[in-house]
Amino acid sequence: MNSVTVVGPGTVVVSFEQEPMVVTQGAVAIEKDRIIAIGTFEDLCATYPRAELLDAHGGLILPGLVNLHHHFYSALARGLDPGMPMHDFGEILKGLWWRLDRALDTQTVRLSATLSLADCIRWGCTTVFDHHVSPSCLGGSLNLIADVVREAGLSAVLSYEISDRNGHEEAQAGLEENLQFASDHGKSPRLRSLLGLHASFTVSDTTLEQVSKQRPADLGIHVHLAEDQLDAKLSQERYGQTPLDRLDHFGLLDGRALLAHGVDLGRHDVSRIAESGAILIHNPESNSNNAVGRLDLEAALSLGCTVGLGTDGMSSRMLGSLRAAFLGVRAGTGDPTSGFDTVSGLLHANSRRAAQIFDEPLLGRLSEGAPADVIVIDPPAPTQVTPANVLGHLLYGVSENVVRHTIARGRILLKDFRHTTLDVGEIAAQALAASPALWERFRELDT
Amino acid sequence: MNSVTVVGPGTVVVSFEQEPMVVTQGAVAIEKDRIIAIGTFEDLCATYPRAELLDAHGGLILPGLVNLHHHFYSALARGLDPGMPMHDFGEILKGLWWRLDRALDTQTVRLSATLSLADCIRWGCTTVFDHHVSPSCLGGSLNLIADVVREAGLSAVLSYEISDRNGHEEAQAGLEENLQFASDHGKSPRLRSLLGLHASFTVSDTTLEQVSKQRPADLGIHVHLAEDQLDAKLSQERYGQTPLDRLDHFGLLDGRALLAHGVDLGRHDVSRIAESGAILIHNPESNSNNAVGRLDLEAALSLGCTVGLGTDGMSSRMLGSLRAAFLGVRAGTGDPTSGFDTVSGLLHANSRRAAQIFDEPLLGRLSEGAPADVIVIDPPAPTQVTPANVLGHLLYGVSENVVRHTIARGRILLKDFRHTTLDVGEIAAQALAASPALWERFRELDT
Repeated sequence: MNSVTVVGPGTVVVSFEQEPMVVTQGAVAIEKDRIIAIGTFEDLCATYPRAELLDAHGGLILPGLVNLHHHFYSALARGLDPGMPMHDFGEILKGLWWRLDRALDTQTVRLSATLSLADCIRWGCTTVFDHHVSPSCLGGSLNLIADVVREAGLSAVLSYEISDRNGHEEAQAGLEENLQFASDHGKSPRLRSLLGLHASFTVSDTTLEQVSKQRPADLGIHVHLAEDQLDAKLSQERYGQTPLDRLDHFGLLDGRALLAHGVDLGRHDVSRIAESGAILIHNPESNSNNAVGRLDLEAALSLGCTVGLGTDGMSSRMLGSLRAAFLGVRAGTGDPTSGFDTVSGLLHANSRRAAQIFDEPLLGRLSEGAPADVIVIDPPAPTQVTPANVLGHLLYGVSENVVRHTIARGRILLKDFRHTTLDVGEIAAQALAASPALWERFRELDT
Repeated sequence: MNSVTVVGPGTVVVSFEQEPMVVTQGAVAIEKDRIIAIGTFEDLCATYPRAELLDAHGGLILPGLVNLHHHFYSALARGLDPGMPMHDFGEILKGLWWRLDRALDTQTVRLSATLSLADCIRWGCTTVFDHHVSPSCLGGSLNLIADVVREAGLSAVLSYEISDRNGHEEAQAGLEENLQFASDHGKSPRLRSLLGLHASFTVSDTTLEQVSKQRPADLGIHVHLAEDQLDAKLSQERYGQTPLDRLDHFGLLDGRALLAHGVDLGRHDVSRIAESGAILIHNPESNSNNAVGRLDLEAALSLGCTVGLGTDGMSSRMLGSLRAAFLGVRAGTGDPTSGFDTVSGLLHANSRRAAQIFDEPLLGRLSEGAPADVIVIDPPAPTQVTPANVLGHLLYGVSENVVRHTIARGRILLKDFRHTTLDVGEIAAQALAASPALWERFRELDT
């Protein structure tokens, strides 16, 4: 019986570090859920003569991508008309997302997650951080999503957005949901948890106090921070402190914290985030879509902040997000020499953060002993790939290419462009059947 | 013998008009290079019981996309290090593009075009407008590209960028190249021509005078206009007129003109373009990449200008360009109610302009008698598609999906994600073999 699979031949890019090792005519050998060797295709075929071959057709062989901030729950909003103009971020939340999340039931939570996971697989993301909310079916929602994650075959870090926006009881139930999931399933090799908080402006001091007391020491938070000026404004009005001061005051700003967005932050706050070891997550397409402004990536990096990358539910295409981040820097600075240095560390930061949370130091690296998260991008690069120009290829060429194979922890989830674990036609049909009732419930809800 | 192909079942979106007709569980019947019927899948299968079926797997069935501004010649720049910082648009042209174009030989012109065409097919573009330049192999370059276009199976509108930047002789040769191609091949059903001009600031009055005298009345121009402030500045310095005044003065500003970019235009100029019937082509990703600013789409449309969409060689993904245009409006205006209205006509304008140039009134429309340019996007939409929400689906969902089938003038060019006319692995291998010498020639050239 073949227990080894060789993925090749192709151009192996070992990691997303600034100048990663590159193996041309290379391959990756996998056994069970681990990478057992990296080398030339010829060498690996000689070493493992009985291995099964997964033909990479000369494509780019990359570590599986990591998405640090996704919202599976938003998948069924495609084509949904909120029925009202939404003039600012507050109106977008109230008119669209806070109505949609209340309208979700267990069936649509499941379908939304499945649709998103299918897209993750399609675009080569093997580890995804979801920030979930579904007030009408709160208890057990993370377990429900975890089931779909297992079925799809990815690794995921789940969290439920605690919020007092619908009352304190719901905030407590949200805290319970996070703690229950963390205690039940948050330590499996492919599932981890973070403690989800919506955003400072919707979480009361009472709730933060409870969170502070009850969270296990090793459980970091996952929170929207300064996505819009609204966060600072309402936090100050309601709780008399800035969003960052509040997190800090309750002992939640530490090296395990994931802070999504950071658009509206001053230099002092960014420095404090840098000191804490928390990670800021840039979501360029979503920020544009919500017209909230742009994270000042250059400043954040120059102040020593670790910055990663997410999609915030706008899509599941991490390389599209990388390209958007790059073009956003260029357009934002008006400086055509900018961009490369600024975005060069984003994907690497994502891998490092996932490695930390999964206690898998080699995650995000194609090397012996690493988890077998491997993707193949098609077609082959038409010019030389060198350690120095990997980023150029990713931004200008590869971000426009398609993923041929997605392998997560040794399991092939996409093979020659086709899903192996999910029937996307069937999922879409189920979603199509379920979405009219969801949209109807949405329309009946007040803002 | 089956002469009819039925593409379905799927959701047929008949055109890119603001509220297009939508047929759910629909299909398109094709015979030779024409669409012969649109209807429900059930009806078309009953009408054409012996038809060959191209399974759309429930995906979105759309008219083939049109790209109004592409540069095939730039494909081999992926990963190329210009070896110098480029601080503004002038330095980008001199340091990168004007060196790359001089380094091209016939082999790399052909390979570049083939790579770009493969990407066009991959992303569902069936009609592409190329703006070519290759000074070292000028004569016959358009014919060479036309050969590849025929082989790939697309429709294309070709033009050569006339410019005095390397001397007047070369400008004359460029004019000759355009006229020769137009006279030889520019009226075939799948190939048309425009008269290419680089940009006002590199084309002398002498050349414009020649162009004006020699161009056939039905041959429109394809030119970069106001891509950066450099165009106005140098046109004024060198020729004492604004770029638009110069085009107008030489009788080139008319209803067949394609004006790429238009970033640096005042309201008066935009109004004159609107009056002329010329089309402005928005290239959002390229403009961000070059840090030249953003076309004021809202203003251009409010002044009655026809605005279309291109990729300017940055990619071949038109739906990616549409999404970038949309997010660019949102980010640029800071107004989350903006965007939908602004970009709603772009793809339709592209189809209309291509229809005009190919003398095919139904091009870009899935209706009886139209050219059979049809694409299928995968996976199926997970929520209802209605005439009112097609754009929402395109921007938030479909722009992130992949193309399953691309059919151009009745010929299947991409079938179940795989190319049928081009061997992309082989093309990449040839490009990989040829690009080191190209990059070496590039490095040896002065800026």
